[in-house]
Amino acid sequence: MIPTFDDVLAAEARIRPHIHRTPVLTSRMIDEMTGASLFFKCENMQKAGAFKARGATNAVFGLSDAQAARGVATHSSGNHGTCLAYAAGRRGVPCTVVMPHTAPQAKKDAVRGYGARVVECEPSTSSREAVFAEVMDGTGAEFVHPYNDPRVIAGQGTCALELETQADGLDAVIAPIGGGGMVSGTVLALSEAAPDRRIFAAEPEQADDAARSFRAGHIIADDAPDTIADGLKVPLKELTWHFVRRIDDILTVSEAEIVAAMELIWKRLKIVAEPSSAVPLAAILKNRDIFAGQRVGVILTGGNVDLRKLPWGGKE
Amino acid sequence: MIPTFDDVLAAEARIRPHIHRTPVLTSRMIDEMTGASLFFKCENMQKAGAFKARGATNAVFGLSDAQAARGVATHSSGNHGTCLAYAAGRRGVPCTVVMPHTAPQAKKDAVRGYGARVVECEPSTSSREAVFAEVMDGTGAEFVHPYNDPRVIAGQGTCALELETQADGLDAVIAPIGGGGMVSGTVLALSEAAPDRRIFAAEPEQADDAARSFRAGHIIADDAPDTIADGLKVPLKELTWHFVRRIDDILTVSEAEIVAAMELIWKRLKIVAEPSSAVPLAAILKNRDIFAGQRVGVILTGGNVDLRKLPWGGKE
Repeated sequence: MIPTFDDVLAAEARIRPHIHRTPVLTSRMIDEMTGASLFFKCENMQKAGAFKARGATNAVFGLSDAQAARGVATHSSGNHGTCLAYAAGRRGVPCTVVMPHTAPQAKKDAVRGYGARVVECEPSTSSREAVFAEVMDGTGAEFVHPYNDPRVIAGQGTCALELETQADGLDAVIAPIGGGGMVSGTVLALSEAAPDRRIFAAEPEQADDAARSFRAGHIIADDAPDTIADGLKVPLKELTWHFVRRIDDILTVSEAEIVAAMELIWKRLKIVAEPSSAVPLAAILKNRDIFAGQRVGVILTGGNVDLRKLPWGGKE
Repeated sequence: MIPTFDDVLAAEARIRPHIHRTPVLTSRMIDEMTGASLFFKCENMQKAGAFKARGATNAVFGLSDAQAARGVATHSSGNHGTCLAYAAGRRGVPCTVVMPHTAPQAKKDAVRGYGARVVECEPSTSSREAVFAEVMDGTGAEFVHPYNDPRVIAGQGTCALELETQADGLDAVIAPIGGGGMVSGTVLALSEAAPDRRIFAAEPEQADDAARSFRAGHIIADDAPDTIADGLKVPLKELTWHFVRRIDDILTVSEAEIVAAMELIWKRLKIVAEPSSAVPLAAILKNRDIFAGQRVGVILTGGNVDLRKLPWGGKE
């Protein structure tokens, strides 16, 4: 049930033909602002625009032919749905994504664009669960959870392995935390590949359930937190908690700090990154004392953002 | 006076410590749309946000100590001014940039941010020339022209050399054309490094002086052309014409085609690229017959754009 380092190595070999080896960018100006040397791992440029293509691809390409014939399914109005659709399309297997009818049209279009089926539910947990159960009954599809799945965690772990080959002598790695899939994969991969690497997570103050869980020593789940970093609203689950509890710290930042860091990333790195991606840089800017003088890998998790609704508005 | 291939090799060694080896990105979706295999060379991620850091750095670091002590100067309200300021700051030599007082505040701030001096003139050629002559008299600075300078052309040529090591077996390379510095450097570099490579330039219809020059066989300069691709308004000069006349073709595109290609680049490649950078992709989309089935290097020239004034507006 709990994935191992060998699972990460197997994932790396399995997904390599299907994902991008994303670039690592640096900025002298941002380094001057933070006092650290930052290495930005650009998973915003990953296939389907998010690191979640790694875990989804690992899950889909690890299925037996018989399983694959029945397809895969998930519930997600975020990057996991799009990335699972991408992976399924790449293997040519059926994929169903359940999402609330209130989800952005762009998300539905993206899933359909990869050849997957969108099944809409009401925007409530009970409706989602009922509709998803129907989908599972009707298709016999394999459920691929967005993060509480060993195949997904092993797949996300390939990102940290790749980063280690691209940036020498890192002292620390920091990633945003929502459900904890990326952080779990990072812990798993570095536990063998670089056991002395410090690992931090960064979270919005307005969705700080992981930080409170970390302090309390058990999972705390919030009811409907609200943050611009919409990929980070989901709670930890038992598999990710197994890994997340072992990291060095979880740092929290305000909404304004997230937007400022996001704009800095766009301006200085010249890349399109979604709000969730900016949370770690916001945490580094806020906690100079922790990171100054260190070489830090910063995982930019996704780039799926509505270019017509940017948080800094359309005018000066 | 005319730079040689050895000048490009010397430039490469000279500027290497001071510039980024920028990534090359691909997109399956854009490839499907064009029928070609495109390799986007991300000079938008170059130091100071534009390929012009290459030529400017080559010019600045090629100066003798005595020359360097007197500093460098140029007139530019665009990327060359910022990039020359970057290079001068990097070597620690004085730099003066003459620009009209009507230039965007962000451009003035960027130049000053690198430690250079901004001297303002009226937005007319006569005022610019008078003010610039005063600056030259007062400082004894070395004039580094934005493109009609052998040191600058040799520096820009390093981009195509680098791209050749990052994308195997290209059939063609395409770059935007304004004054022709990047295209000239590309011709110069590939004339020895890859002599069978086809070379195209792309230009806005609304500033198509290079295309008309190419057809006419002599330089035609327009008076104040207007295009969203504001880096491409300047005319060819004798040094760049020497190289530009030898390329395969110059393709032109409309303003709407530029904006559409720009949005496609932001959405699919997840990068911030300025309008000029999008002109080559617009030309490829418009000329499928030329590029279909080919492996094409596409030079994205810069990423300096006002994030609060995007051409697709702030609403759906």
